[in-house]
Amino acid sequence: MKPSSLEALIEALRCLPGVGPKSAQRMAYHLLQQQRPAAEHLAMCLTRALQVLRHCARCNTFSETELCPRCASSRRDPALLCVIETPVDMNMMEQTHAYNGLYYVLMGHVSPLEGIGPRELQLERLLERAMDGVVTEVILATNYTNEGEATAHYLSEMLKNHGIRVSRIARGVPAGGELEYVDSGTLAQALRERRAMTG
Amino acid sequence: MKPSSLEALIEALRCLPGVGPKSAQRMAYHLLQQQRPAAEHLAMCLTRALQVLRHCARCNTFSETELCPRCASSRRDPALLCVIETPVDMNMMEQTHAYNGLYYVLMGHVSPLEGIGPRELQLERLLERAMDGVVTEVILATNYTNEGEATAHYLSEMLKNHGIRVSRIARGVPAGGELEYVDSGTLAQALRERRAMTG
Repeated sequence: MKPSSLEALIEALRCLPGVGPKSAQRMAYHLLQQQRPAAEHLAMCLTRALQVLRHCARCNTFSETELCPRCASSRRDPALLCVIETPVDMNMMEQTHAYNGLYYVLMGHVSPLEGIGPRELQLERLLERAMDGVVTEVILATNYTNEGEATAHYLSEMLKNHGIRVSRIARGVPAGGELEYVDSGTLAQALRERRAMTG
Repeated sequence: MKPSSLEALIEALRCLPGVGPKSAQRMAYHLLQQQRPAAEHLAMCLTRALQVLRHCARCNTFSETELCPRCASSRRDPALLCVIETPVDMNMMEQTHAYNGLYYVLMGHVSPLEGIGPRELQLERLLERAMDGVVTEVILATNYTNEGEATAHYLSEMLKNHGIRVSRIARGVPAGGELEYVDSGTLAQALRERRAMTG
Protein backbone atom coordinates (compact mmCIF):
# COMPACT_ATOMS: atom_id res chain seq x y z
CA MET A 1 0.00 0.00 0.00
CA LYS A 2 3.05 2.34 -0.15
CA PRO A 3 3.01 5.01 -2.87
CA SER A 4 5.29 4.00 -5.74
CA SER A 5 7.54 7.05 -5.35
CA LEU A 6 8.10 6.07 -1.71
CA GLU A 7 8.83 2.44 -2.62
CA ALA A 8 11.28 3.65 -5.26
CA LEU A 9 13.06 5.91 -2.76
CA ILE A 10 13.37 3.11 -0.19
CA GLU A 11 14.75 0.74 -2.82
CA ALA A 12 17.17 3.40 -4.11
CA LEU A 13 18.54 4.07 -0.60
CA ARG A 14 19.72 0.47 -0.45
CA CYS A 15 22.66 1.33 -2.70
CA LEU A 16 24.24 2.93 0.39
CA PRO A 17 26.81 0.69 2.12
CA GLY A 18 25.41 -1.40 4.96
CA VAL A 19 21.82 -0.27 4.41
CA GLY A 20 19.21 -3.06 4.38
CA PRO A 21 15.43 -2.89 3.87
CA LYS A 22 14.61 -1.75 7.44
CA SER A 23 17.27 0.97 7.51
CA ALA A 24 16.28 2.18 4.06
CA GLN A 25 12.66 2.49 5.20
CA ARG A 26 13.69 4.42 8.32
CA MET A 27 15.88 6.72 6.25
CA ALA A 28 13.11 7.41 3.74
CA TYR A 29 10.55 8.30 6.43
CA HIS A 30 13.12 10.36 8.29
CA LEU A 31 13.98 12.35 5.17
CA LEU A 32 10.36 12.93 4.18
CA GLN A 33 9.13 13.64 7.68
CA GLN A 34 11.69 15.64 9.58
CA GLN A 35 14.33 16.58 7.07
CA ARG A 36 12.68 17.88 3.93
CA PRO A 37 15.00 20.88 3.36
CA ALA A 38 18.03 18.71 4.18
CA ALA A 39 16.75 16.00 1.85
CA GLU A 40 16.37 18.49 -1.00
CA HIS A 41 19.87 19.69 -0.28
CA LEU A 42 21.15 16.10 -0.30
CA ALA A 43 19.57 15.38 -3.69
CA MET A 44 21.13 18.56 -5.04
CA CYS A 45 24.60 17.84 -3.58
CA LEU A 46 24.52 14.28 -4.88
CA THR A 47 23.54 15.37 -8.38
CA ARG A 48 26.19 18.07 -8.40
CA ALA A 49 28.96 15.80 -7.08
CA LEU A 50 28.16 13.24 -9.77
CA GLN A 51 28.32 15.97 -12.38
CA VAL A 52 31.50 17.80 -11.41
CA LEU A 53 33.70 15.15 -9.79
CA ARG A 54 36.05 13.14 -11.97
CA HIS A 55 39.35 11.37 -11.38
CA CYS A 56 42.61 13.33 -11.21
CA ALA A 57 44.63 12.49 -14.34
CA ARG A 58 47.75 11.81 -12.26
CA CYS A 59 46.71 10.33 -8.90
CA ASN A 60 43.21 9.06 -9.74
CA THR A 61 41.55 10.61 -6.67
CA PHE A 62 38.29 12.53 -6.94
CA SER A 63 38.85 16.00 -8.29
CA GLU A 64 36.89 18.83 -9.84
CA THR A 65 39.86 19.75 -11.98
CA GLU A 66 42.04 17.85 -14.49
CA LEU A 67 44.80 17.71 -11.86
CA CYS A 68 43.95 17.67 -8.16
CA PRO A 69 45.53 20.49 -6.06
CA ARG A 70 48.08 18.08 -4.55
CA CYS A 71 49.33 16.78 -7.89
CA ALA A 72 49.44 20.34 -9.24
CA SER A 73 51.52 21.52 -6.26
CA SER A 74 55.26 22.19 -6.71
CA ARG A 75 55.88 21.65 -2.99
CA ARG A 76 55.59 17.86 -3.09
CA ASP A 77 58.46 15.48 -3.90
CA PRO A 78 57.61 13.94 -7.30
CA ALA A 79 60.23 11.18 -6.86
CA LEU A 80 58.09 9.35 -4.30
CA LEU A 81 54.82 7.71 -5.28
CA CYS A 82 52.62 6.21 -2.58
CA VAL A 83 49.94 3.73 -3.70
CA ILE A 84 46.79 3.56 -1.57
CA GLU A 85 43.39 1.96 -1.91
CA THR A 86 41.03 4.90 -1.33
CA PRO A 87 40.95 8.71 -0.98
CA VAL A 88 40.25 8.25 2.74
CA ASP A 89 43.63 6.53 3.06
CA MET A 90 45.23 9.58 1.45
CA ASN A 91 43.79 11.78 4.20
CA MET A 92 45.14 9.34 6.78
CA MET A 93 48.63 9.49 5.25
CA GLU A 94 48.57 13.28 5.17
CA GLN A 95 47.60 13.44 8.83
CA THR A 96 50.86 11.68 9.78
CA HIS A 97 52.84 14.69 8.44
CA ALA A 98 55.49 12.06 7.64
CA TYR A 99 55.16 12.02 3.86
CA ASN A 100 55.76 14.69 1.28
CA GLY A 101 55.60 12.71 -1.96
CA LEU A 102 52.73 12.14 -4.36
CA TYR A 103 50.00 9.51 -4.41
CA TYR A 104 48.22 7.06 -6.63
CA VAL A 105 44.74 5.97 -5.52
CA LEU A 106 43.71 2.51 -6.72
CA MET A 107 40.04 3.10 -5.85
CA GLY A 108 39.81 -0.46 -4.60
CA HIS A 109 41.91 -3.58 -4.31
CA VAL A 110 42.42 -6.86 -6.14
CA SER A 111 39.60 -9.15 -5.02
CA PRO A 112 38.87 -12.27 -7.09
CA LEU A 113 35.77 -12.96 -4.97
CA GLU A 114 34.26 -9.62 -5.96
CA GLY A 115 35.43 -10.03 -9.55
CA ILE A 116 37.96 -7.20 -9.23
CA GLY A 117 41.21 -8.06 -11.00
CA PRO A 118 44.14 -6.01 -12.34
CA ARG A 119 42.10 -5.06 -15.40
CA GLU A 120 39.17 -3.69 -13.36
CA LEU A 121 41.59 -1.59 -11.28
CA GLN A 122 43.26 -0.28 -14.48
CA LEU A 123 46.67 -1.06 -13.05
CA GLU A 124 48.33 -0.21 -16.37
CA ARG A 125 47.53 3.43 -15.54
CA LEU A 126 49.59 3.11 -12.35
CA LEU A 127 52.44 1.49 -14.28
CA GLU A 128 52.43 4.33 -16.76
CA ARG A 129 52.35 6.85 -13.90
CA ALA A 130 55.27 5.15 -12.10
CA MET A 131 57.39 5.10 -15.29
CA ASP A 132 57.31 8.84 -15.87
CA GLY A 133 61.10 9.02 -15.40
CA VAL A 134 60.81 11.13 -12.23
CA VAL A 135 59.50 8.57 -9.76
CA THR A 136 62.37 6.72 -8.07
CA GLU A 137 60.41 4.72 -5.52
CA VAL A 138 56.91 3.39 -5.26
CA ILE A 139 55.67 2.94 -1.68
CA LEU A 140 52.87 0.41 -1.40
CA ALA A 141 50.46 1.50 1.35
CA THR A 142 47.52 -0.76 0.63
CA ASN A 143 45.74 -2.17 3.69
CA TYR A 144 47.20 -5.13 5.57
CA THR A 145 44.06 -7.12 4.87
CA ASN A 146 44.12 -10.20 2.61
CA GLU A 147 42.99 -8.17 -0.38
CA GLY A 148 45.42 -5.33 0.35
CA GLU A 149 48.29 -7.79 0.71
CA ALA A 150 47.37 -9.58 -2.52
CA THR A 151 47.21 -6.23 -4.25
CA ALA A 152 50.63 -5.22 -2.88
CA HIS A 153 52.20 -8.49 -4.04
CA TYR A 154 50.71 -8.16 -7.50
CA LEU A 155 51.86 -4.54 -7.79
CA SER A 156 55.32 -5.38 -6.49
CA GLU A 157 55.79 -8.00 -9.19
CA MET A 158 54.42 -5.76 -11.91
CA LEU A 159 56.53 -2.75 -10.95
CA LYS A 160 59.78 -4.65 -10.32
CA ASN A 161 59.43 -6.36 -13.72
CA HIS A 162 59.73 -2.86 -15.13
CA GLY A 163 62.79 -2.02 -13.02
CA ILE A 164 60.99 0.20 -10.55
CA ARG A 165 62.08 0.26 -6.88
CA VAL A 166 59.23 -0.83 -4.65
CA SER A 167 58.75 -0.65 -0.88
CA ARG A 168 55.95 -1.56 1.48
CA ILE A 169 54.91 0.36 4.63
CA ALA A 170 55.95 -1.57 7.73
CA ARG A 171 53.54 -3.92 9.40
CA GLY A 172 52.93 -1.36 12.13
CA VAL A 173 49.39 -1.43 10.88
CA PRO A 174 47.68 -4.19 12.88
CA ALA A 175 47.08 -7.38 10.89
CA GLY A 176 43.54 -7.45 9.53
CA GLY A 177 43.22 -3.72 10.12
CA GLU A 178 42.39 -0.90 7.75
CA LEU A 179 44.33 2.37 7.42
CA GLU A 180 41.19 4.38 7.97
CA TYR A 181 40.95 3.29 11.62
CA VAL A 182 44.62 3.47 12.65
CA ASP A 183 46.07 6.29 14.74
CA SER A 184 48.51 8.68 13.11
CA GLY A 185 51.49 7.62 15.28
CA THR A 186 51.27 3.97 14.26
CA LEU A 187 50.87 4.93 10.63
CA ALA A 188 53.83 7.32 10.78
CA GLN A 189 56.02 4.50 12.14
CA ALA A 190 54.83 2.10 9.47
CA LEU A 191 55.79 4.70 6.90
CA ARG A 192 59.28 5.26 8.37
CA GLU A 193 59.96 1.52 8.63
CA ARG A 194 58.98 0.67 5.10
CA ARG A 195 61.02 -2.22 3.75
CA ALA A 196 62.30 -3.10 0.25
CA MET A 197 60.07 -5.70 -1.31
CA THR A 198 61.86 -8.97 -2.13
CA GLY A 199 60.81 -12.42 -3.38
CA MET B 1 42.15 19.15 0.32
CA LYS B 2 38.79 17.57 -0.61
CA PRO B 3 36.94 19.15 -3.56
CA SER B 4 34.11 21.37 -2.31
CA SER B 5 31.41 19.33 -4.07
CA LEU B 6 32.67 16.22 -2.26
CA GLU B 7 32.74 18.03 1.11
CA ALA B 8 29.21 19.25 0.46
CA LEU B 9 27.99 15.74 -0.36
CA ILE B 10 29.59 14.27 2.78
CA GLU B 11 28.04 17.00 4.92
CA ALA B 12 24.63 16.55 3.26
CA LEU B 13 24.64 12.78 3.89
CA ARG B 14 24.75 13.49 7.62
CA CYS B 15 21.05 14.35 7.56
CA LEU B 16 20.42 10.58 7.37
CA PRO B 17 19.54 9.02 10.74
CA GLY B 18 22.51 7.58 12.62
CA VAL B 19 25.07 8.77 10.07
CA GLY B 20 28.16 10.48 11.54
CA PRO B 21 31.19 12.01 9.78
CA LYS B 22 32.98 8.69 9.14
CA SER B 23 29.90 6.93 7.78
CA ALA B 24 29.02 9.91 5.62
CA GLN B 25 32.52 9.87 4.14
CA ARG B 26 32.28 6.13 3.44
CA MET B 27 28.89 6.57 1.82
CA ALA B 28 30.08 9.42 -0.39
CA TYR B 29 33.11 7.49 -1.66
CA HIS B 30 31.01 4.36 -2.13
CA LEU B 31 28.44 6.25 -4.18
CA LEU B 32 31.02 8.02 -6.33
CA GLN B 33 33.29 5.04 -6.75
CA GLN B 34 31.20 1.90 -7.17
CA GLN B 35 27.62 3.04 -7.47
CA ARG B 36 27.41 5.93 -9.91
CA PRO B 37 24.30 4.76 -11.80
CA ALA B 38 22.63 3.81 -8.48
CA ALA B 39 23.62 7.19 -7.02
CA GLU B 40 22.08 9.03 -9.96
CA HIS B 41 18.96 6.95 -9.51
CA LEU B 42 18.91 7.78 -5.79
CA ALA B 43 19.14 11.52 -6.44
CA MET B 44 16.31 11.19 -8.94
CA CYS B 45 14.09 9.11 -6.63
CA LEU B 46 14.70 11.48 -3.72
CA THR B 47 13.84 14.55 -5.77
CA ARG B 48 10.72 12.88 -7.15
CA ALA B 49 9.54 11.63 -3.75
CA LEU B 50 9.91 15.12 -2.31
CA GLN B 51 7.92 16.52 -5.21
CA VAL B 52 5.00 14.11 -5.38
CA LEU B 53 4.53 12.88 -1.80
CA ARG B 54 2.23 14.80 0.50
CA HIS B 55 0.14 13.89 3.52
CA CYS B 56 -3.21 12.13 3.12
CA ALA B 57 -5.94 14.62 4.06
CA ARG B 58 -7.62 12.07 6.34
CA CYS B 59 -4.95 9.86 7.90
CA ASN B 60 -1.86 12.05 7.47
CA THR B 61 0.32 9.25 6.02
CA PHE B 62 2.48 9.82 2.94
CA SER B 63 0.39 9.73 -0.20
CA GLU B 64 0.65 10.77 -3.83
CA THR B 65 -3.06 11.52 -3.89
CA GLU B 66 -5.37 13.77 -1.80
CA LEU B 67 -6.67 10.63 -0.05
CA CYS B 68 -4.46 7.57 0.37
CA PRO B 69 -5.87 4.31 -1.10
CA ARG B 70 -6.76 3.00 2.36
CA CYS B 71 -8.77 6.07 3.38
CA ALA B 72 -10.47 6.07 -0.04
CA SER B 73 -11.44 2.41 0.33
CA SER B 74 -15.07 1.50 1.14
CA ARG B 75 -14.02 -1.85 2.62
CA ARG B 76 -12.65 -0.43 5.87
CA ASP B 77 -14.74 0.27 8.99
CA PRO B 78 -14.88 4.08 9.36
CA ALA B 79 -16.14 3.81 12.97
CA LEU B 80 -12.72 2.73 14.27
CA LEU B 81 -9.76 5.10 14.22
CA CYS B 82 -6.33 3.81 15.21
CA VAL B 83 -3.70 6.42 16.13
CA ILE B 84 -0.07 5.47 15.43
CA GLU B 85 3.22 7.30 15.44
CA THR B 86 4.61 6.49 11.98
CA PRO B 87 3.67 4.96 8.61
CA VAL B 88 5.88 1.97 9.47
CA ASP B 89 3.59 1.25 12.42
CA MET B 90 0.65 1.23 10.02
CA ASN B 91 2.32 -1.54 8.03
CA MET B 92 2.88 -3.46 11.26
CA MET B 93 -0.79 -3.13 12.22
CA GLU B 94 -1.91 -4.30 8.78
CA GLN B 95 0.31 -7.36 8.99
CA THR B 96 -1.61 -8.57 12.06
CA HIS B 97 -4.78 -8.94 9.90
CA ALA B 98 -6.59 -8.12 13.16
CA TYR B 99 -7.78 -4.62 12.31
CA ASN B 100 -10.13 -3.36 9.64
CA GLY B 101 -10.66 0.25 10.72
CA LEU B 102 -8.95 3.42 9.59
CA TYR B 103 -5.78 5.14 10.84
CA TYR B 104 -4.37 8.44 11.88
CA VAL B 105 -0.58 8.83 11.67
CA LEU B 106 0.89 11.35 14.11
CA MET B 107 4.24 11.44 12.28
CA GLY B 108 6.02 11.55 15.62
CA HIS B 109 5.25 11.71 19.31
CA VAL B 110 5.08 14.29 22.09
CA SER B 111 8.67 14.87 23.24
CA PRO B 112 9.43 17.95 25.34
CA LEU B 113 13.16 17.18 25.10
CA GLU B 114 13.07 17.41 21.31
CA GLY B 115 10.77 20.42 21.45
CA ILE B 116 7.83 18.48 20.00
CA GLY B 117 4.58 19.40 21.72
CA PRO B 118 0.89 19.09 20.81
CA ARG B 119 1.17 22.10 18.53
CA GLU B 120 4.11 20.68 16.54
CA LEU B 121 2.18 17.43 16.05
CA GLN B 122 -0.92 19.37 14.92
CA LEU B 123 -3.08 17.34 17.26
CA GLU B 124 -6.08 19.57 16.52
CA ARG B 125 -6.16 17.85 13.10
CA LEU B 126 -6.60 14.48 14.83
CA LEU B 127 -9.35 15.92 17.05
CA GLU B 128 -11.18 17.23 14.01
CA ARG B 129 -10.75 13.86 12.29
CA ALA B 130 -12.06 11.96 15.35
CA MET B 131 -15.12 14.21 15.61
CA ASP B 132 -16.42 13.53 12.11
CA GLY B 133 -19.58 11.93 13.59
CA VAL B 134 -18.73 8.49 12.18
CA VAL B 135 -15.84 7.49 14.44
CA THR B 136 -17.13 5.74 17.60
CA GLU B 137 -13.82 4.67 19.11
CA VAL B 138 -10.25 5.91 18.92
CA ILE B 139 -7.64 3.20 19.54
CA LEU B 140 -4.33 4.60 20.74
CA ALA B 141 -1.50 2.47 19.34
CA THR B 142 1.47 4.70 20.04
CA ASN B 143 4.64 2.96 21.18
CA TYR B 144 5.01 1.81 24.78
CA THR B 145 8.07 4.01 25.16
CA ASN B 146 8.08 7.02 27.49
CA GLU B 147 7.25 9.38 24.63
CA GLY B 148 4.57 7.08 23.22
CA GLU B 149 2.96 6.72 26.66
CA ALA B 150 3.04 10.49 27.24
CA THR B 151 1.47 10.99 23.83
CA ALA B 152 -1.27 8.43 24.59
CA HIS B 153 -2.09 10.09 27.90
CA TYR B 154 -2.27 13.52 26.33
CA LEU B 155 -4.47 12.25 23.50
CA SER B 156 -6.70 10.35 25.90
CA GLU B 157 -7.39 13.51 27.90
CA MET B 158 -7.94 15.60 24.82
CA LEU B 159 -10.31 13.15 23.15
CA LYS B 160 -12.29 12.27 26.28
CA ASN B 161 -12.81 15.97 26.99
CA HIS B 162 -14.69 16.00 23.72
CA GLY B 163 -16.77 12.95 24.61
CA ILE B 164 -14.90 10.52 22.37
CA ARG B 165 -14.43 6.88 23.47
CA VAL B 166 -10.75 6.07 23.74
CA SER B 167 -8.92 2.77 24.14
CA ARG B 168 -5.27 1.76 24.29
CA ILE B 169 -3.73 -1.39 22.79
CA ALA B 170 -2.83 -3.85 25.54
CA ARG B 171 0.63 -3.87 26.99
CA GLY B 172 1.44 -6.98 25.01
CA VAL B 173 4.05 -4.85 23.35
CA PRO B 174 7.17 -5.24 25.52
CA ALA B 175 7.86 -2.22 27.73
CA GLY B 176 10.45 0.04 26.12
CA GLY B 177 9.85 -1.63 22.77
CA GLU B 178 8.78 -0.16 19.46
CA LEU B 179 5.95 -1.49 17.26
CA GLU B 180 8.27 -1.73 14.29
CA TYR B 181 10.25 -4.57 15.87
CA VAL B 182 7.43 -6.61 17.39
CA ASP B 183 6.12 -9.84 15.85
CA SER B 184 2.60 -9.85 14.38
CA GLY B 185 1.20 -12.32 16.96
CA THR B 186 2.10 -10.15 19.94
CA LEU B 187 0.73 -7.09 18.22
CA ALA B 188 -2.52 -8.88 17.30
CA GLN B 189 -3.02 -9.82 20.95
CA ALA B 190 -2.31 -6.28 22.13
CA LEU B 191 -4.94 -5.08 19.69
CA ARG B 192 -7.57 -7.63 20.86
CA GLU B 193 -6.91 -6.84 24.54
CA ARG B 194 -7.15 -3.10 24.23
CA ARG B 195 -8.63 -1.56 27.36
CA ALA B 196 -10.84 1.46 28.00
CA MET B 197 -8.73 4.38 29.11
CA THR B 198 -9.59 5.64 32.59
CA GLY B 199 -8.12 8.17 35.02
